[in-house]
Amino acid sequence: MLRVRVAIVGASGYTGGETLRLLLGHPNVETLQATSDSYAGKPVSWAHPNLRKRTQLRFVPHAELAACDVLFLCLPHGEAMKQIERFESLAERIIDLSADFRLKSPDTFRSYYGIDHAKPERLATYVYGIPELHREAMRTSRHISSAGCNATAVILALWPLFKHRLADTTRTIADVKTGSSEAGVSATPGSHHPERSGAVRSYSPTGHRHSAEIIQELSVTEPVTVQMSATSIEMVRGILATCHVTLKSRLTIKDIWQVYRQEYGNEPFIRLVAENHGIFRFPEPKLLAGTNYCDIGFELDKNGERLVVISALDNLMKGAAGQAVQAFNLMYGFDETTSLEFTGLHP
Amino acid sequence: MLRVRVAIVGASGYTGGETLRLLLGHPNVETLQATSDSYAGKPVSWAHPNLRKRTQLRFVPHAELAACDVLFLCLPHGEAMKQIERFESLAERIIDLSADFRLKSPDTFRSYYGIDHAKPERLATYVYGIPELHREAMRTSRHISSAGCNATAVILALWPLFKHRLADTTRTIADVKTGSSEAGVSATPGSHHPERSGAVRSYSPTGHRHSAEIIQELSVTEPVTVQMSATSIEMVRGILATCHVTLKSRLTIKDIWQVYRQEYGNEPFIRLVAENHGIFRFPEPKLLAGTNYCDIGFELDKNGERLVVISALDNLMKGAAGQAVQAFNLMYGFDETTSLEFTGLHP
Amino acid sequence: MLRVRVAIVGASGYTGGETLRLLLGHPNVETLQATSDSYAGKPVSWAHPNLRKRTQLRFVPHAELAACDVLFLCLPHGEAMKQIERFESLAERIIDLSADFRLKSPDTFRSYYGIDHAKPERLATYVYGIPELHREAMRTSRHISSAGCNATAVILALWPLFKHRLADTTRTIADVKTGSSEAGVSATPGSHHPERSGAVRSYSPTGHRHSAEIIQELSVTEPVTVQMSATSIEMVRGILATCHVTLKSRLTIKDIWQVYRQEYGNEPFIRLVAENHGIFRFPEPKLLAGTNYCDIGFELDKNGERLVVISALDNLMKGAAGQAVQAFNLMYGFDETTSLEFTGLHP
Amino acid sequence: MLRVRVAIVGASGYTGGETLRLLLGHPNVETLQATSDSYAGKPVSWAHPNLRKRTQLRFVPHAELAACDVLFLCLPHGEAMKQIERFESLAERIIDLSADFRLKSPDTFRSYYGIDHAKPERLATYVYGIPELHREAMRTSRHISSAGCNATAVILALWPLFKHRLADTTRTIADVKTGSSEAGVSATPGSHHPERSGAVRSYSPTGHRHSAEIIQELSVTEPVTVQMSATSIEMVRGILATCHVTLKSRLTIKDIWQVYRQEYGNEPFIRLVAENHGIFRFPEPKLLAGTNYCDIGFELDKNGERLVVISALDNLMKGAAGQAVQAFNLMYGFDETTSLEFTGLHP
Repeated sequence: MLRVRVAIVGASGYTGGETLRLLLGHPNVETLQATSDSYAGKPVSWAHPNLRKRTQLRFVPHAELAACDVLFLCLPHGEAMKQIERFESLAERIIDLSADFRLKSPDTFRSYYGIDHAKPERLATYVYGIPELHREAMRTSRHISSAGCNATAVILALWPLFKHRLADTTRTIADVKTGSSEAGVSATPGSHHPERSGAVRSYSPTGHRHSAEIIQELSVTEPVTVQMSATSIEMVRGILATCHVTLKSRLTIKDIWQVYRQEYGNEPFIRLVAENHGIFRFPEPKLLAGTNYCDIGFELDKNGERLVVISALDNLMKGAAGQAVQAFNLMYGFDETTSLEFTGLHP
Repeated sequence: MLRVRVAIVGASGYTGGETLRLLLGHPNVETLQATSDSYAGKPVSWAHPNLRKRTQLRFVPHAELAACDVLFLCLPHGEAMKQIERFESLAERIIDLSADFRLKSPDTFRSYYGIDHAKPERLATYVYGIPELHREAMRTSRHISSAGCNATAVILALWPLFKHRLADTTRTIADVKTGSSEAGVSATPGSHHPERSGAVRSYSPTGHRHSAEIIQELSVTEPVTVQMSATSIEMVRGILATCHVTLKSRLTIKDIWQVYRQEYGNEPFIRLVAENHGIFRFPEPKLLAGTNYCDIGFELDKNGERLVVISALDNLMKGAAGQAVQAFNLMYGFDETTSLEFTGLHP
Repeated sequence: MLRVRVAIVGASGYTGGETLRLLLGHPNVETLQATSDSYAGKPVSWAHPNLRKRTQLRFVPHAELAACDVLFLCLPHGEAMKQIERFESLAERIIDLSADFRLKSPDTFRSYYGIDHAKPERLATYVYGIPELHREAMRTSRHISSAGCNATAVILALWPLFKHRLADTTRTIADVKTGSSEAGVSATPGSHHPERSGAVRSYSPTGHRHSAEIIQELSVTEPVTVQMSATSIEMVRGILATCHVTLKSRLTIKDIWQVYRQEYGNEPFIRLVAENHGIFRFPEPKLLAGTNYCDIGFELDKNGERLVVISALDNLMKGAAGQAVQAFNLMYGFDETTSLEFTGLHP
Repeated sequence: MLRVRVAIVGASGYTGGETLRLLLGHPNVETLQATSDSYAGKPVSWAHPNLRKRTQLRFVPHAELAACDVLFLCLPHGEAMKQIERFESLAERIIDLSADFRLKSPDTFRSYYGIDHAKPERLATYVYGIPELHREAMRTSRHISSAGCNATAVILALWPLFKHRLADTTRTIADVKTGSSEAGVSATPGSHHPERSGAVRSYSPTGHRHSAEIIQELSVTEPVTVQMSATSIEMVRGILATCHVTLKSRLTIKDIWQVYRQEYGNEPFIRLVAENHGIFRFPEPKLLAGTNYCDIGFELDKNGERLVVISALDNLMKGAAGQAVQAFNLMYGFDETTSLEFTGLHP
């Protein structure tokens, strides 16, 4: 059995912690390094108390990162691109979980992130990390840029429609509801519990950075725009994307099912959820905590012209660490679902 | 000082309880009846424990409702229209908090509620109960139909734009986030805490009944449509409406401020909230629990073409009981803010 | 009507904000200063967004505090005692909401707070600020030290029992559940929403500082000890104290009711809640958010030997600002409930 | 490899659903029946939406339950004892998750449950299902009665102290905080989200039924009593037990650690958590959702006389289905941790 030496760079944050949890249970991972300067020398369970009794691993300082087979980069946005040469010299393969290598165009990067890209020539070498769109490229790639969490939810919701040219290309609105873990591990006035608890807080009504990825990935068969707004709600993990679509022509709900089944019927991590009974008729992120699923559902209005597509995922899993491990599995030819079997809890 | 005899019909539910709380503190209310068959004879604090030590009032059965000056009808949808003759014989004035008399068109009523209206000839006699739109009519009216909670949030958010013909009339999407109290006082499988807690649950992606009111009230200067979707989130009280608007022509943010200030600058219960500092930059329903405010904010995209308007309110207050008491104050010429002075809590 | 000039020192925190909210609505408050160095010159609504449209007041720097009639000190623990001479020179009357002047014994202060008291000679001049115990002293006092929030809940729960020598003096356990606002306005790793949300976190299993106040106040008729433990739960405002009492001799539930009614029957802000029907049989802090009530209930075991007394309050109201305003009302001879009329929300 | 035929009786509730989730992933389970009358014929994912795409299994009616090797009984209290003869005729081994066979004494059963036991002669044949206390008996037993969730938390917290005769036998108080899933799958007025959300609700200040189990299991080396009170808090899954102990003689914290390490050092599902750094110093149920861990910590007061022991677990896992599967593994000689490997999520 192939065994791989892995390092997680920036392992004390939330996406790093989830990557660590998943790789600790991965049968093909031989050695595991976890870097953190602030926790250097401490057990990883100091940062991630769920790993108590699960591992004796300790954090190493970033500077002591040793060569290995593959790096998972879980650094703040802007860091990976600055140090990418060092990272590429340490490992043949890289899976970057930051936003640094998601966009193909340096101009778009500048426009959305407000700075020049440090290594624009590298952008083309990274495969955009949604397996459902780029599975074959991932199998042969050495560099993967894991997709943004909101972007993953919106892209997976809309991809079948735009691929099949069914949706108006300019009128789609993605209204995204997000949990607090999306903003990372650092305490801020806005994340202070008395202020954040119970909040329903618009934080990017227009111009959300993930829009750039969404437009890039969905503009495959024809150029499209998607307007995205984000609202923080009372939730730690999870994203619900409500995508308001105007169809180019009237369709029936059977037409819609057919298209989604065709695209996603064999996908191990996509479940189509649009039921006419019970209380769980549409996707709900609560059911997905800790899983790598993206659940997708839809409702067509009675005129057959307006379609609402709803997708849900765990921002730290299918929106980050889970999808990165899925990419890792593809990269090495492991079973795509390895270490991602957790089916979620109810209630 | 004018003193009025009031009855609340259906006072054991949530809107009835809030109406009761507000009227207990109203200086112009002389006598107060509260009807409930299930709690007949019991202190009102059995249903509304916040009223302990505040009042000794007891529920009376519906059948024993005595004549008085004004009735607040807090019955389930469909009940008020069936009994409206009895109610009109008992009191000169009626404020109905149900959906029964909101729509002017019996056909629209049938289309959205699936039944024929029991008293279509009465529909025209009810003023639609949003004071910001119909204040003068309310002052002289004897019958008011209090607006739907989601409808109030969406209408107040969009009214200035449609009044001034600034927004595209067919492309507006209202994505509404709601709390659990909106569904009323009865326990259901969907309201069971282990299932409802932490839920982010799409419950009306298309065809929400409040769409009918929204379209009726916003189609004043020209016919408009608004697509509304609703999602239940972890919250007891509160609504956040995120309204995605395409402008007819490019505007500046100053233009937007000017229009909203012109329409709402003197409104006692509307606050414009669109700040560029701090963590409370846009409206948040959490701050509004127990208040009659509707906070409204907006963000214009950098092209000046897409406007996101955000409104927040407490569904039981400005979305129901508070707005009904505001209407009551207008009807009788009392100070419009009487008994609605609570400014809300932070944190 | 007597009108008083008031200043709130340290008005940008949570207890300061609540004091401000209450005093803005107080008919006997003539002028109001609110100090904050970090927000100096800014509208108070920048720190307390619930006050938008309610006031145009701005923060003044601490150094610019002007002389007035009474100061509410809402400073971090340890600050009031350091600057007390300045404060006493600026105003004749002082209500301190910190822990600095609660304990009568400098030795006890040192033992619990780990530092020497800066002004031990002043300790005796401050009345401990629970009106139910010290109402008469408050009426004639110029200095009041507002009680700790947890201490208020525990003392009010147990006071009738110890006053009447009914409870074993060494075996009482107070298990206190608290919300996140108790720790104040500053963000910390422990208050970061992803970590604090849903937490059930023991933070002072033994040796809680409020124990000192509790023991001081309850040792009136005979020396007693009370063991207190505190657990943070998912809640922003509120305290529930579950007090486990061993009775000296067997009693009936009627005996218990009689004692509590005797002590608290006329108290405006204490409600006895121990019902045998419905879902609100015992006190619940959720119902008390924004109110000055302390609800108290109890259950006696079938042997008549073990009594569980349950008390609930809003830590920022009856546990801080509300109780301070109640003290202010007593100090000046105003109606004790002035500005404290809010009855709370349901649901 | 030994393969076992299993049935879950009453599989549409919460403990049934968790048992189902665990057994679906168990390598030694050959065939699986799940009974439910209300969902007969429907996919199990209708009741447990987390199992979508995980299994195609459908519920069978109770009457169609077929013979197999082992039954997990997940019925409401009182049902298992009524039908136990039928169940014993269908399977050689039984693991009952209800309260029916936990108590050894029919008199105690009557006293706490208010009814006569239907099969008192069977009580002695059931091993009380906490592996840490009864592992050897479980290995050879055919009948196991899974322990109560609160009882498990309290017993595991206190067992080392009472086994070693360190704690006063009459003064222990267990103050238990619980989530809403403990009350089961049926909606009630008390579980209605607007009422239950944010509640801190005392529901059994005295006389909790689990007291009987606790006293039975802890009275091994000498007779003891434990007073237990329970409070519902805002949480779906989880229990925190705060146990207030008076030691017989002064001890040091090292003494305490030694005793707990001796008893639990080799236990796969107990973690000792009592740290002096960070924010996770003591056990927290949030970290344990979906896991079979019971985390236990403690703090000794500065006099060395009062010990607070804190334990946390997931009421549906170590408090029900997880512990039942642990028992199943022991019964059949499987690795004790099979199918219980999930380590929990952070944040």
